[in-house]
This record gives sequence, structure tokens and C-alpha cells, in this order.
Amino acid sequence: MPVSNPMTLTTPSDREIVLTRVFDAPREQVFRAFVDPALVAQWWGPRGFTTIVDKLEAKPGGAWRYIVRGSNGKEDAFRGVFREVTPPERLVFTFEWEGLPGHVLVETITLEERDGKTTVTDTSLFHTPEERDGMLQSGMEGGASESWDKLAELLAQQG
Amino acid sequence: MPVSNPMTLTTPSDREIVLTRVFDAPREQVFRAFVDPALVAQWWGPRGFTTIVDKLEAKPGGAWRYIVRGSNGKEDAFRGVFREVTPPERLVFTFEWEGLPGHVLVETITLEERDGKTTVTDTSLFHTPEERDGMLQSGMEGGASESWDKLAELLAQQG
Repeated sequence: MPVSNPMTLTTPSDREIVLTRVFDAPREQVFRAFVDPALVAQWWGPRGFTTIVDKLEAKPGGAWRYIVRGSNGKEDAFRGVFREVTPPERLVFTFEWEGLPGHVLVETITLEERDGKTTVTDTSLFHTPEERDGMLQSGMEGGASESWDKLAELLAQQG
Repeated sequence: MPVSNPMTLTTPSDREIVLTRVFDAPREQVFRAFVDPALVAQWWGPRGFTTIVDKLEAKPGGAWRYIVRGSNGKEDAFRGVFREVTPPERLVFTFEWEGLPGHVLVETITLEERDGKTTVTDTSLFHTPEERDGMLQSGMEGGASESWDKLAELLAQQG
């Protein structure tokens, strides 16, 4: 099945990665998928991985922690703290892979609705260009694209 | 008593603050004062404050958390994670004030010894120029200067 709304990745500066995609759902529904633990567990992470939402306190100062488990049992954990939570339009939070502690980026997600569709823009601002380049080289683009495909499928199921 | 080795503060870029001071002690001794909980509690923070070292695991991935209590009982807590610990020459760790969660800077401390004296260079790299400016406006320069005076006094007592 062709993907009608693929994710785009751009790098407007040497410390940023910007992901954008249009989802065929109102933004209240899309926003909920980012802050409801039961929903996040269904789409966050690449295909073939199981996601466990260990913590998700979507409020300023609240913590989040997700564990992604591969089919071989290997686990990776990611964590951060919410800085801003403005339903249904904006989320700002830190993001840290526990495998590289102390390397922290700030992710800003904005949701804009037009004609019942929602454009999600996800801007990651890294501390240094080297950390940004390391993320690009990690294969994150494929993983993020699969994750957002899963989100689109979840939204479609919710109808 | 005149201060013979005052702290200097420079801002080599719009995201950095660099503090430097010469301490009249070998760098093994100065390094210890940054990683030994009992020593940190004696000098970290401005004059007139009590410092409680809640956590100090000086190893890569280890956590630190210090609580500073004013004479009025008001407490502020600071925390982070160590990225590099290379005795006696280098420490890299994140720094976050719990009053502004998710605003994380990276602090790099280097120690260089010459003729029995140690030059400490403490570089803070902020995520954004705005966060750097906020720190400058917080009165940190006076607080850091007092804290490093207390460190110099502690080192002198240790003889």
C-alpha cells in the first residue's frame, strides 16, 4: 500500500533535526496519542519492537520513560522531563537514551490542524552538532518513519 | 584579607560561561574536593547556605544531587549525571536546577597543575543563548565566586 503522507526529515541548522508528517485525524486525537500511556505503547518505536511505557506524566516537570524491547529480548530505555504541555498544540520535553547518559536533547512537537488533518512537526535541538550527527547516523530516520506509520494506523483504527 | 587568586568569568560564545581560578594545592587534592561527598558538602554553594550531598556517584552514568538550604530554611536542589570522570584532570556532567526541570547544561571541569598550584577551568555549555543569559542574570557569578573561595579555604585547611 503506498504511503500517502510520508514523513519528511530536514536539518535547518547543525544542531537540529525536524520531522514532519500530516496525519488524517483531528489534532485533539493526535495529541492524545502522545500523552496517553496506553496509546503511546501501541505506536512508539520501530516495527517489531514492544514498547513499555514505564512513566508518562504529561505535565510540566513530569517524567517520561519508555522501554523498547526487540524480538531478541534486548532492551533500550529512553527518558526525559516535560517542559511544556499545551493541549492540543504543543509539547516540549527532554530526550535521553539511557545507553548514553547525560546526552540530552530537547524535542518540541507542534500540532496544526487544517480540514480535519493534523500536521505534526517534531523539532529536536541537540546540545552539539556531534550529538545531532550521531543521532542521524543511528538509523533514527527509518525508526521514526516506522513509528509514525504505526501512529497513522492507530489513528485510522480509532476512526 | 585580599583575595590573591580571584575567579574570572568569560563568555567565549553565546552559549557558554567559563569560570577559571588558580588554587594553591596539587590537582589530586583539588580533584578530590569535587568528587568526595564529605568535601563537596563543605564548599559547594554560596556563603551562608548549608549543602546536603544527596547523591554523588562520580563515575560515567552516575548521578549527583545537591540540596542547598538557606538560613530561612528555603531549599533548592540541583542534579545531573556524570558523562566523564578522569582523575585528576577532567569531569564532565550535566547540571539541572530542579526549579526549572528539563533545562540542562553540560559542565566540563579541567584541572591543570603547575608548580604545585592548580588551575581549574569550569566551562558550562547551555542548550540555548537564552538559558545562558538566564544563568548570568541569576546572580550565579557572585555565588560561584563565594563557593570557590570556600573551596580555597578548605584546601588551605587540609594543608
